[in-house]
Amino acid sequence: MAKVAFIGLGVMGYPMAGHLKVRGGHELKVYNRTFAKAEKWAAEFGGRAVRTPAEAADGADFVFACVGNDDDLRSVTTGKDGAFETLKADAIFIDNTTASAEVARELYEAAKARGAHFVDAPVSGGQAGAENGVLTVMCGGDEAAFERARPVIDAFARMVGLMGPAGSGQITKMINQICIAGLVQGLAEGIHFGKKAGLDIEKVVDVISKGAAGSWQMENRHKTMNAGKYDFGFAVDWMRKDLDIVLTEARRNGAKLPVTALVDQFYGDVQEMGGNRWDTSSLLARLEK
Amino acid sequence: MAKVAFIGLGVMGYPMAGHLKVRGGHELKVYNRTFAKAEKWAAEFGGRAVRTPAEAADGADFVFACVGNDDDLRSVTTGKDGAFETLKADAIFIDNTTASAEVARELYEAAKARGAHFVDAPVSGGQAGAENGVLTVMCGGDEAAFERARPVIDAFARMVGLMGPAGSGQITKMINQICIAGLVQGLAEGIHFGKKAGLDIEKVVDVISKGAAGSWQMENRHKTMNAGKYDFGFAVDWMRKDLDIVLTEARRNGAKLPVTALVDQFYGDVQEMGGNRWDTSSLLARLEK
Repeated sequence: MAKVAFIGLGVMGYPMAGHLKVRGGHELKVYNRTFAKAEKWAAEFGGRAVRTPAEAADGADFVFACVGNDDDLRSVTTGKDGAFETLKADAIFIDNTTASAEVARELYEAAKARGAHFVDAPVSGGQAGAENGVLTVMCGGDEAAFERARPVIDAFARMVGLMGPAGSGQITKMINQICIAGLVQGLAEGIHFGKKAGLDIEKVVDVISKGAAGSWQMENRHKTMNAGKYDFGFAVDWMRKDLDIVLTEARRNGAKLPVTALVDQFYGDVQEMGGNRWDTSSLLARLEK
Repeated sequence: MAKVAFIGLGVMGYPMAGHLKVRGGHELKVYNRTFAKAEKWAAEFGGRAVRTPAEAADGADFVFACVGNDDDLRSVTTGKDGAFETLKADAIFIDNTTASAEVARELYEAAKARGAHFVDAPVSGGQAGAENGVLTVMCGGDEAAFERARPVIDAFARMVGLMGPAGSGQITKMINQICIAGLVQGLAEGIHFGKKAGLDIEKVVDVISKGAAGSWQMENRHKTMNAGKYDFGFAVDWMRKDLDIVLTEARRNGAKLPVTALVDQFYGDVQEMGGNRWDTSSLLARLEK
């Protein structure tokens, strides 16, 4: 039973905060840029809606955030009325935003300067994973802070891992997105080719999905892709944001990501087709255009 | 107990023919371009080594082939002393070569003209799959011929599917290779990026492999890739041959395969690095060059 704050009640944060309250049994204060959403959450789950991140963090043992990007994250932490104004010594700030490794390292230092802790903890599993409380959480930070945060995070997670020092959670999430980019484009090309050749895609997947071409994406997305339905999760706009972070980091660490960069451009084409909110498997729609 | 012929005792064909003899319990005649190999096989498994494909097919109920490419396949079937010279009416020619859909349709017609049958039946699962008799076999052809051939094929297969009319087995194998091309490059970029960022790749895979980035390749190849070992199966030279078939077929059916075409070029770089016999995961070596 801890005092927990949650900042950012979007499609991910809203249910994640809910699990902290219901499964975790913690005392919750919630903040959202649009206050009405925080009030709605408080009415649904029982907790307190507050007007600023500073108010949310005040007195909390654990402060979670799940916001849009690096700038949003800086705003709700070290910005005016930000959580770091009130974050108490020894409190742990757990950031579930997919952000840069740079901002993670910066906020790790800022928290440390206050005697508090910062753990970067981006998630994967999408909206369904958040709603069902089965997210994968990739953490970076100090081991002691991680071990204290872990049982709290468990309320919305199926797998929680400490990947290394500050920023390592973000780097792991980036690796995840890089793998997905190439994989989904490959799958899209395979299905596109199969359809052009007149084959029954269900039958094809049935035969090849257990072998060397098999993947979670093939298993879980081939039916909807084959049907031209692209409303099953992580949106193209979000993927482009993530790939922007990935490609910036790669420029910094010298990694070569030719296909990731190309697929990022392809997602740009999908946006131009009006597919901003289509899921990432809509690379197939671009091929079929 | 049937009369079976096997043409082409390479790294795949040699153990496949062995399973037809040992597990299938069939009477075997084997042909190989280098006769000594056929003699070795006959000495090991018990069967008859013959000097020409025509001699192998003579009197056989089922004739298998597993040779290098379209030209080799034409040579052992409709070429001089080829199997089609002696192929009896109602016999079934089962081609395990990865070849074009075009040659499959051509030989399907040629067999039909003789009152015999042709089933294109390329395999996946690599050398290990052939040795352990657990290949996936993707078939194209007539249902009646397929149903008769299936229990014989079962001797070296874990999964056997009829994908559609003549050529459909080859198209399915092509879809398999297309999916692998994008997938392996994505995985290679992910590992390359993770190493550049100083992360523990084992730990990363442990956390992300059950989710949306997960794949057979990630599960089965990340350790060897991370260790820079590329001697675990399907070679780059063979992959380039397959991708050549894929890209030719795509030109014919109008499918757009931008990443497959790019990865084919990358495999060309690997060949230039001396990686002709490295396995397909060696795309990572190219990034690390």
